[in-house]
Amino acid sequence: MDHTIIFQPSGRRGLVPEGTTILDASRKLGVDIEAVCGELIVCGKCRVKIMEGKFQKEDITSSMNHLSSLDEKEKKVLKRKDAEEHVRLACCTKIYGDVLVFVPEASRTGKQVGSKAAGKIKVRLKPAVRKYYVELPEPNLDDPLGDFERIEKVLYGNNPKMKKLSIDYRALQKLPDILRKSDWKITVTVWNDAEIIRIEPGKVETNIGLAVDIGTTSVAGYLTDLTTGDVIVTESMMNPQVRYGEDVMSRISYCMFNEETGLKELQDTIIEGLNTIAKQATHKAGLSTDDISEMTLVCNTAMHHILLGINPEYMGVAPFTPALHHSVDIKAERFGIHILPAGNIHVLPIEAGFVGADNVGCLIADKPHKRKEMTLLIDIGTNGELVLGNRDKLISCSCATGPALEGAQIEFGMRAAPGAIERVKIDPETLEPAYKVIGSNRWSDGETNMQAKGICGSAIIDVIAEMFRARILKKNGQINHDLTSKRIRKNDKGLSEYVLAWKHETAIDADIVVNQKDVRAIQLAKGALYSGCLIMLRKLGIKKFDRLAIAGAFGSHIDKVAAMVIGMFPDCDLKKVEYIGNAAGDGARIALLSTDERKEANVIAREVEYVELALEEDFNDRFGEAMQFPHMFDEFPHLEGILPKETQTVS
Amino acid sequence: MDHTIIFQPSGRRGLVPEGTTILDASRKLGVDIEAVCGELIVCGKCRVKIMEGKFQKEDITSSMNHLSSLDEKEKKVLKRKDAEEHVRLACCTKIYGDVLVFVPEASRTGKQVGSKAAGKIKVRLKPAVRKYYVELPEPNLDDPLGDFERIEKVLYGNNPKMKKLSIDYRALQKLPDILRKSDWKITVTVWNDAEIIRIEPGKVETNIGLAVDIGTTSVAGYLTDLTTGDVIVTESMMNPQVRYGEDVMSRISYCMFNEETGLKELQDTIIEGLNTIAKQATHKAGLSTDDISEMTLVCNTAMHHILLGINPEYMGVAPFTPALHHSVDIKAERFGIHILPAGNIHVLPIEAGFVGADNVGCLIADKPHKRKEMTLLIDIGTNGELVLGNRDKLISCSCATGPALEGAQIEFGMRAAPGAIERVKIDPETLEPAYKVIGSNRWSDGETNMQAKGICGSAIIDVIAEMFRARILKKNGQINHDLTSKRIRKNDKGLSEYVLAWKHETAIDADIVVNQKDVRAIQLAKGALYSGCLIMLRKLGIKKFDRLAIAGAFGSHIDKVAAMVIGMFPDCDLKKVEYIGNAAGDGARIALLSTDERKEANVIAREVEYVELALEEDFNDRFGEAMQFPHMFDEFPHLEGILPKETQTVS
Repeated sequence: MDHTIIFQPSGRRGLVPEGTTILDASRKLGVDIEAVCGELIVCGKCRVKIMEGKFQKEDITSSMNHLSSLDEKEKKVLKRKDAEEHVRLACCTKIYGDVLVFVPEASRTGKQVGSKAAGKIKVRLKPAVRKYYVELPEPNLDDPLGDFERIEKVLYGNNPKMKKLSIDYRALQKLPDILRKSDWKITVTVWNDAEIIRIEPGKVETNIGLAVDIGTTSVAGYLTDLTTGDVIVTESMMNPQVRYGEDVMSRISYCMFNEETGLKELQDTIIEGLNTIAKQATHKAGLSTDDISEMTLVCNTAMHHILLGINPEYMGVAPFTPALHHSVDIKAERFGIHILPAGNIHVLPIEAGFVGADNVGCLIADKPHKRKEMTLLIDIGTNGELVLGNRDKLISCSCATGPALEGAQIEFGMRAAPGAIERVKIDPETLEPAYKVIGSNRWSDGETNMQAKGICGSAIIDVIAEMFRARILKKNGQINHDLTSKRIRKNDKGLSEYVLAWKHETAIDADIVVNQKDVRAIQLAKGALYSGCLIMLRKLGIKKFDRLAIAGAFGSHIDKVAAMVIGMFPDCDLKKVEYIGNAAGDGARIALLSTDERKEANVIAREVEYVELALEEDFNDRFGEAMQFPHMFDEFPHLEGILPKETQTVS
Repeated sequence: MDHTIIFQPSGRRGLVPEGTTILDASRKLGVDIEAVCGELIVCGKCRVKIMEGKFQKEDITSSMNHLSSLDEKEKKVLKRKDAEEHVRLACCTKIYGDVLVFVPEASRTGKQVGSKAAGKIKVRLKPAVRKYYVELPEPNLDDPLGDFERIEKVLYGNNPKMKKLSIDYRALQKLPDILRKSDWKITVTVWNDAEIIRIEPGKVETNIGLAVDIGTTSVAGYLTDLTTGDVIVTESMMNPQVRYGEDVMSRISYCMFNEETGLKELQDTIIEGLNTIAKQATHKAGLSTDDISEMTLVCNTAMHHILLGINPEYMGVAPFTPALHHSVDIKAERFGIHILPAGNIHVLPIEAGFVGADNVGCLIADKPHKRKEMTLLIDIGTNGELVLGNRDKLISCSCATGPALEGAQIEFGMRAAPGAIERVKIDPETLEPAYKVIGSNRWSDGETNMQAKGICGSAIIDVIAEMFRARILKKNGQINHDLTSKRIRKNDKGLSEYVLAWKHETAIDADIVVNQKDVRAIQLAKGALYSGCLIMLRKLGIKKFDRLAIAGAFGSHIDKVAAMVIGMFPDCDLKKVEYIGNAAGDGARIALLSTDERKEANVIAREVEYVELALEEDFNDRFGEAMQFPHMFDEFPHLEGILPKETQTVS
């Protein structure tokens, strides 16, 4: 049985099968609802309001009867006021009758601000897929050569590398008809000088590929012209696997606890996501999905294994061995990816542990292994990956930063979408903040309604750094109640908090605050990164690095000063800090454009030495220390003049 | 709505959807009914009797109401007596209610006698697929190499040819679990020293492949031990494409007239057939279909194109170019073949026109290109393929013999199944025949009920030859009414016929006769072969050949004297006639067992020169002459003493 559901304020409506959750219904009808915890009934971000009122013929006394009843888990997350206001969690509330649902501003996802825009890359074009226009002599009784052999003769005649040319079964199927309908003038698409993967009538110059960066949280696809290297369309989306868990570990757990189907479900979900990206990107470019001749993919090792349908569990335990390191090519058709059926999916090689193809992508984009200077490369995503070294040696490690830096475990954290606070300053004298909201150019004044909805990742680092500079935070991270400000207070549960925006400035009808738990989450994340850096330096027997490269879509929005103030990475010359953008995605694009770079990727992937932090004896001690805020200018000489002297004494 | 159908005498019963034909219902329920014309409502072989009587609760006055009514086409095929006896054609009669159907003896297919049994082949074992047992060092923190790379290290260490080893995606998926569950001791299946296609726990020595010969009429599969070359199980079946037409041309027509779906339907049908063979063969051997690591296939060019889903129509018109000549390897999973998913389907190369991979199979089995003596190789199936030549040069051609030689266009023709007359002698004095029936060892005496059901292909050649020897046939093929015998008569339509078996000797309650139309069909078939031979000899500028190799499952049952008597091939020393069995199938087996032979097959396929008979100016004249029966001992010196002198004068 199907029931009608209507979402307000968008007004979208539709029929859904009985038992569908409101969250699934919202996805089906294209209504965005935040779902950060992956339907674990933990985050409470997917609050929706069930509206009273009849909207159909049958008489319903209360639409609440049309929904599954509150269970214990949901009750725990909801507040008393929620129940009074008919608020439910969309992720676990099932539909058993027609309902009208209001999605509050705070629960709306909004379209993520284009944080994974394609950066500039440098690469000598040598794509695996090339197109050749050929005019063939028509066969006759003295020359009755087969169609494929006729093409082979011309191509091999012009390029001795094509000695072992074959033709994919799908291309072969279309060959005879196309040849005869196009007067023996065709364009032949060849992969790796080895296999014909497409036959098109006449002369076709368009040659397109798709490079995709599968992040734990978001997926970005770069539809690329293989003849120029230019990105034609950038298409991004939430990683649809988020519904199985926000972070890598919860997805691995899902696979393990649902032995029969879990892995397959997760694999199908990401493949479906890739198909959506391919479809939307080609649609925008006025092309068909068949025009994508090849796809390259980067992702971390866990995502890599899940994507390929390989049990990821052994990578999580010592000695952290993956199923394979080497790059993999799989026919799109066999893999269920809807690009050119005979086209290939090239998955870049992975390193080890949780240092995956995305990191290999960063390496071929930034090339620390070709530099003399010692580079520390930090790729910050839901997981943090570090590489340290130069042309002599590279080591890597992975830090479990968690999603806090991206705003996920933060009470008012949200994605970098319109309405998110993205920059924060705090006056050390008055303790009054000023902030900027995505979608507006001006700074807040404490009076104007800024339509703020939450705090995005970069602003969280900002606000923590500013709170520390203003001594609102002590070195150990505690909120300092010795200071006098109405913004420093305790909530009804006794939790300390600092009010960043008053209710009247927001679009969510509530104060936006940073609380003690938020501070702790950031301390854990930055502590993981910092201690990772220290252990890496020690591994190479060096005290400092020459250059810091910050990668990651999120990383490029971080204020480097704020990041150093909170101690995300060791002291360095701020002039030597470089934002290298979405280097993992750049790596996927580079691999798409050059087979030489693919070879190089396979070589580096094997050369980087993986350091498993958890196995370092003093990791816990280092980690504990690193959770503190920096307090010694002799440790951070480059912060002198940035941090007020007083911060050194507040403890 | 479903209806119950019961077949007698087998007693099989089941429910089928309304509108199902009786023929389709019989297939579904595993009841064999002859269907020679491919449901074209022409051959009338699928006669069934609708039985009166109630067999269910509801009262039915006549089960005839439960069937579609007679249409014009069906009426034309049925005889008056049929209608009286409630006889219908199973192929076009649809079920609209419960029915009880009797399948007369004459309409039952019976299990074809194992005519495609595996012969002995000579080949140096060098299969593409090999298994390696490896014990791997367990990974540790000092040696955290990935699972695949760990295997690669061992295999490549032992065999430098495996330098570019990769692993199939499906094998990779199972790798980590199997390795850890089997204590790092596994068996690795490698294809062409290039790709790992299977991982099995522990030590496994069984290594199996399946060689298949797809004939126009039947399909034979040879489940083969790749370590010894022995055939474990031979499994054969009717080619299920028969329902779309008995011969190649009608199937090509079906593809052309059903542009959207025809080719796909035919392709799916044969793939389903291959899956049945694989399933049944492995079941008999106590294996699983996954144990088949590779499949090799031979078939003629039209079947080849249809199998691969390639439009076959251009091969039927000058200059007869196929889509490709070269062998093709396709992953089983992608092709929908249920063997090891990562295993390959190797389709042997084809020559040209209608000379296909089956002929290439014959060549690598018989190797005329390695012999000094001039060989004429005849592969007789529904299509006749000829190769003439020696180590210096080979030419080939294809003769449209049609299915008459196999008994299909012959009134009482049937497959070589129990009840088929398989040998015939006629006393030239009394004109009385004696015959043998498959399933019995003794000769008929004109009295005993031999339970004869029809005449199989080899016996048709016998009977025509004997009729000619006994002067019942004139040189032009006419039945000679000047002779006095109650066996020589005209039927009620005025058609001349010779009674081979009286009604009381048969299981079909009717005389079994050879009529004038049957004789004409054989004349056409043998004329096509004979004129083909003559033109081939002329092409090579020679008068005669040294050796005749008769291939084909059917060919091996032909009496060589009878065949020469009717003039199927030019005169030759009968001692130099060799039956080489199902050489096409042998070729598939050889290719399965040796990659060297695969290479050779690709070379020969390109070297054989194809002669298109229809383009020879005097083809029609030669063909017309060749339809006569031989009458000059100077043309057939080797028949002297075999044919009585008198035959030379009867005209």
